[in-house]
Parts: sequence; structure tokens; C-alpha cells
Amino acid sequence: MTPDELARACADAMWGDDPASRSLGMALDHVGPGASRLSMAVREDMVNGHGMCHGGFIFTLADSAFAFACNTYNERVVAQHCAVTYIRPARLGMRLTASAQERSRAGRSGIYDVTVTSDDGTVIAEFRGNSRGLGSKFFEDLA
Amino acid sequence: MTPDELARACADAMWGDDPASRSLGMALDHVGPGASRLSMAVREDMVNGHGMCHGGFIFTLADSAFAFACNTYNERVVAQHCAVTYIRPARLGMRLTASAQERSRAGRSGIYDVTVTSDDGTVIAEFRGNSRGLGSKFFEDLA
Amino acid sequence: MTPDELARACADAMWGDDPASRSLGMALDHVGPGASRLSMAVREDMVNGHGMCHGGFIFTLADSAFAFACNTYNERVVAQHCAVTYIRPARLGMRLTASAQERSRAGRSGIYDVTVTSDDGTVIAEFRGNSRGLGSKFFEDLA
Amino acid sequence: MTPDELARACADAMWGDDPASRSLGMALDHVGPGASRLSMAVREDMVNGHGMCHGGFIFTLADSAFAFACNTYNERVVAQHCAVTYIRPARLGMRLTASAQERSRAGRSGIYDVTVTSDDGTVIAEFRGNSRGLGSKFFEDLA
Repeated sequence: MTPDELARACADAMWGDDPASRSLGMALDHVGPGASRLSMAVREDMVNGHGMCHGGFIFTLADSAFAFACNTYNERVVAQHCAVTYIRPARLGMRLTASAQERSRAGRSGIYDVTVTSDDGTVIAEFRGNSRGLGSKFFEDLA
Repeated sequence: MTPDELARACADAMWGDDPASRSLGMALDHVGPGASRLSMAVREDMVNGHGMCHGGFIFTLADSAFAFACNTYNERVVAQHCAVTYIRPARLGMRLTASAQERSRAGRSGIYDVTVTSDDGTVIAEFRGNSRGLGSKFFEDLA
Repeated sequence: MTPDELARACADAMWGDDPASRSLGMALDHVGPGASRLSMAVREDMVNGHGMCHGGFIFTLADSAFAFACNTYNERVVAQHCAVTYIRPARLGMRLTASAQERSRAGRSGIYDVTVTSDDGTVIAEFRGNSRGLGSKFFEDLA
Repeated sequence: MTPDELARACADAMWGDDPASRSLGMALDHVGPGASRLSMAVREDMVNGHGMCHGGFIFTLADSAFAFACNTYNERVVAQHCAVTYIRPARLGMRLTASAQERSRAGRSGIYDVTVTSDDGTVIAEFRGNSRGLGSKFFEDLA
């Protein structure tokens, strides 16, 4: 299995077990070793009366992208500490994309940066996640 | 109007304009100057196949508590930067409570700490939010 | 040995091995289980031409207070992730005090809040540190 | 003046006014629009009895690199919130390099990522700084 195939197999296992991300309408657009890209439309139940998206949903999209990106090596990994900076508001009807990229992986700890953008590439939020490996695998028979 | 009454009036204005928090089943249990307490049950659409809550919903509850706590002085305030540490998993059926408390307020900037606990008081997550005032008011005719 | 005596014994062991904090002129004013208080004067070699302290020294004082507070249980603990918000400038000649207080301790992970104040109690910075235990002890013959 | 020349002029103005960074032995190796690279040797007064560098000095190097990177557009900018993850220990005699790169700039707010590496490129720490413009300039007669 190539690294790309392994990343995809891990993502498929996670996706099948993640009704929360699916119920928010997220789509898994890409996954590779240490990276992922998810997208989600800002729905009516995510916004306030002025059509502005609750920050929690922007964070949740980024958090999901982080989770998919750090779980691409056949090791089960969880989020430990996450930080988000809100840069511009997201509005009703926008399709948000969260692109996660690994910055560091050492021992059981990893750092992943996620940029959330709108349809036209405008940056909505910047997220950084710190992960920690659990010491267990997705597929026991693989290295 | 006392500070407590002002905090409540601001919260009522925000709550009426926050269908997102309501659609997640949050309840506003308490609000006062620089403080709030919200609660939310972990629902089926928030958990994975093992009954564990997606971190994004824990964050969203804390983020809402933060928003209610910092918007209690008749000044409109937004979240700028937030960080969360996940301490223990939250599970299906748990009722989570997020207690927000102001740590600092200086000029237009504020810091709020939010602790998320389960029914029995076990700490699930610790959140810290940095806020920034917009320079506009909820009620123009008040100081 | 009482918890207070143990905290003090750990602090004495750390202090003897921390020439860096000493060379910055820090004093260890208090230590107890999960808590510490350190102080430091803002010196000429810590400020810019306008007499304002470099943020790194404010952080370093807070980081030392964090280290002393989390190493009070006879378990060796290290800093993993730290965040600081600068609230007001610190100036030449000010004596800064960093008060660290434990917020959470679960398994090998801890969270400590440190407030840095000036002589008159004005808040200069708020710091939060995430710690991780190494699994080794200060005093092998103690529990 | 080209953007590179402006960045250098701002850095020269800052460097002349930063005895703190100089007294720690930092060198400004590179500066450009939204970017900088500083280096510093880990000295005896920065380490503990085991030769390991106090995290505060690693942070301070990164914080200086952040300050030089965000002050490259003729607008005076200050650090507002900074976070660091310690990845590997730094040791006595190592020459640390902090490379700062702009991630986002919108209105008066910016985000800068700083990676601290040892002589052989091993990552020691990852830092992210949030900046805020003061609305004043280095050179009043420039745009």
C-alpha cells in the first residue's frame, strides 16, 4: 500500500464512523499523508439573524480537517489542543473549504495548520491543532 | 438598570438572534456581568460510532458561553482568538455545562475562561477566548 | 511530608538547577501544591529605547512560574504548549510578579494559568501553560 | 523604495532600538516583506544544570523574529497573542534559528508562523503570533 493509499484507507475508516461531520454537510474533498481538504456550506441553522455563521461551525469544519489530516499514517491520533483566529465573517450560503497541512510530527505529537477559505479563496479563519497519538492502529495487520 | 439587568437584557437580545445555539439544543442557564453558563445535551448527531462527541460541538458550546459572557456591558463584542484543550471525552447523552468567567478586560480587549463539565462536574475541556469590542452598542440610549 | 513541604522540596531542587531564572534576577516568592509566585525587576537589558520591556522576558517570567507550579507533586513535568496575551506594556524598573495557579490536572496532562502584574497589581499579561508529565520523580524514595 | 528596501529600513530602525535582542546575542540574518530570520546561540546563562535551554529564551528568539517580520510595511505593529509548542529540547552551544513567515494580514490584524530550528535543521519549537497594527508609521513621509 502506498502512503496515499494508506491515508485514503484511514480516512475511509474515519469517515464511516463520523456521522457528526456528515450531518453538518461536510464533504471530504481530498486526503493524503498529513493533509486533507474538507468543505461545507453555511446553512440556515448555522447563522444568526444577520446571516453570519456561528464561529463554532467554522471551528468544527477546521477540527474535522485536522482530524483527517493527522490520522493518515495508520496510527490513531486525537486532538489535544486547538486554537483558532477568526479573520473575516462567514455568511449564509458560502461554501467553506478547510485545508489541513502537517507542520510537525515528532514522537507521538503533531502540529497541523488549517486554513478556512470561502468560495473565492478569501481567508475566513486560521486554525492550528496539536495532536497526540494513542498508540493503536486502524489496521492491525499493517506496519 | 443594574449591571445584572443590563447583562440579562444584552443576553436576551443575543439569544433572540442566535438560532444556531438554539438548534444545537443549548440552554442559557445563567448570565451576569462578564459571566454566563450554558448547557447542552450530547445528541446522536454529535457523536461518532463509539458514542464519543465530536470536539467541534464541545468547542461550540464553550464559544457560545464566551460570546454571552463578553457581551454583557452593552458593548457589542466579537471573538477574535480562541483556544481549547480537550481533557476527557464527552459521550452520548451527557449534559454538558459551559461556565464562562471574565479574566481580563482592558480597552477593547477581553479574556474569558470557559470550563466545560459533564453532569457530575468532571472537566471535559478548558477554553480561553480573546474578545474585541466593535465600538457599537446593543441599546443606543444606554450608557 | 505534607503537600506543602513536598512542593517546597521540589521547588528547591528545581531552583538549584535553574541558573537561567536566577540570572534574570527572578525571586521565588511562594510555592505550594499546583501554585507558585515569582517576581522579577525589568532591567535595562530587557527594554527597548523607549523603556518598554521585550515581551519575551514577560513570557519567560510566566513560563518559570508555570514550571514551578506544575512541578510540585514529586513528578517531573515539562511545558508542552504555552500561550500568552499581552495586555499592557511593562516598563523599565517595574517589578513584575507572576502568579501561577493550577486549573486542571488529569493523567499526565495539566493546565496552569499565570497572571503577570506590575507593582500596583495592574495586569500586564495572561499566560496559560499545558504541561506533560515525564513519568519520573524528583525523589525516588517518595510516593 | 522597493518592498524589500522598506522591510530592511523598518528592521534597521527596530534593531537600533532593541538592545534586549542584541544582549541575548541575536543576529538578524534576513528580513523581507512579512518575513525574517534571526539566530542565537544557547549560552550558559540560558540553560539548566543538564545543559537544557529554558523555554523562555526559545520563545524570546521566536518572538523577536515575529516582531521583525510583522514590522516590514512601514506600519508599527505589536504582538497581541502568541503561542508556542515545544517539540525538542535545545541544548547548550546549539545555534538556534527562528524563521518567521506571514500567514495572514487583514485590516490591522496579522498572523505569523515562526519555526525554531537547531544547526542541523531539526525543529525545536513552533510558534504562532497574532499581531495588531498601532496606526502609526516608522517613516512618516512614506506611504
